[in-house]
Amino acid sequence: MNPAETAPPSERTRIRRVTENARYERATLHAIIDAAYLCHIAFADAKGTHCIPMACWREGEHLYIHGSNGGRLVRQLLGDTQACITITHLDGLVLARSAFNHSMNYRSCMIYGRFEALTDDAEKRASLARFMDKIAIGRQAEIRPGNDKEFTATTVLRIPLDEAACKVRQGPPIDDAEDMGVQAWVGVLPFTQQRLEPIAAPDCSAPAPGYVRDWLAAA
Amino acid sequence: MNPAETAPPSERTRIRRVTENARYERATLHAIIDAAYLCHIAFADAKGTHCIPMACWREGEHLYIHGSNGGRLVRQLLGDTQACITITHLDGLVLARSAFNHSMNYRSCMIYGRFEALTDDAEKRASLARFMDKIAIGRQAEIRPGNDKEFTATTVLRIPLDEAACKVRQGPPIDDAEDMGVQAWVGVLPFTQQRLEPIAAPDCSAPAPGYVRDWLAAA
Repeated sequence: MNPAETAPPSERTRIRRVTENARYERATLHAIIDAAYLCHIAFADAKGTHCIPMACWREGEHLYIHGSNGGRLVRQLLGDTQACITITHLDGLVLARSAFNHSMNYRSCMIYGRFEALTDDAEKRASLARFMDKIAIGRQAEIRPGNDKEFTATTVLRIPLDEAACKVRQGPPIDDAEDMGVQAWVGVLPFTQQRLEPIAAPDCSAPAPGYVRDWLAAA
Repeated sequence: MNPAETAPPSERTRIRRVTENARYERATLHAIIDAAYLCHIAFADAKGTHCIPMACWREGEHLYIHGSNGGRLVRQLLGDTQACITITHLDGLVLARSAFNHSMNYRSCMIYGRFEALTDDAEKRASLARFMDKIAIGRQAEIRPGNDKEFTATTVLRIPLDEAACKVRQGPPIDDAEDMGVQAWVGVLPFTQQRLEPIAAPDCSAPAPGYVRDWLAAA
């Protein structure tokens, strides 16, 4: 492993609580982002500190979001505002022999930095197409693409993955030696983000394409 | 409905984008929090703006978290720091006839305010027991409760639900009239937080209690 992947990239991304769960490898970071449709973005403005859920996707070493030009979020994030983006996947409740050793299994990442807008139109169109690919490969060719008004009203923003860290907990509980005689069930109650049967809109008149027919199987 | 439940409690909780998705009723707020094991907390300190995932539970009109006394998060949140707590449940990808009208179905809430610590020991113990009840009713009586050292090392914090707002999107896509001839499948690709089969720890020697046996059925 690259030595750069075993240490935090900055002081504020150094995991200080339960350090054995810290992960600094790119592959872990990429997998956590790619498994997510949503991130939470923290930023501050004159009205306070905010935490906003946003759709996200990844291309290489950047995380992307899109938003309305007129919105507060886009204006503020492009005003050289430091942001912190966090993604958390909850994988299970961890039941231990003592109250204190209960925990959760999860995969999370935090990214610090500043967003920039994509100013090149071709690059912006290509990036929005990649976002559509994340939803369903092939769909971009089936729908009406964005017209000039919609395209102009949308800003695509990206933030580099330079200052990022992950935290991952997996596996059974870790009990204290003196608690091993406690007769309680111990283990994990797991969760997963499950896909459910697609729901066609009442006015849908087109047949289901492969990515809809295979939605459950592809999970 | 109480008139207070149809309007935002403050300027910064007034939903300004897609206002038809705004919800200000207490029942919606409570349901979104109660369905969550995790929240994301945004706050700022001298090192920047942060977004931290934390376990949470609700009691009445407060959201509760707990943390280590020595941790940065607890110290900062108790230092009269304004926080914004956001919970988001992703319910589905919404596929429309145009790229622009694609969306997501979700239930989210934002809470603004300042945390306070529970200083009364009995109240703090009762609150931690309620957190255990959220994980599994009855478990509190089966495990070793927190000892003095653990209890002292843990801070329970709460924030009032006074300044909060929800945003909920449900149902099929909403297409523009001029796109109705586009022959694309339209509808929702749904997600749910699914429970999976409990995984007993390798060293588990106690039988599974009802809340473990019924884990899948109770979902």
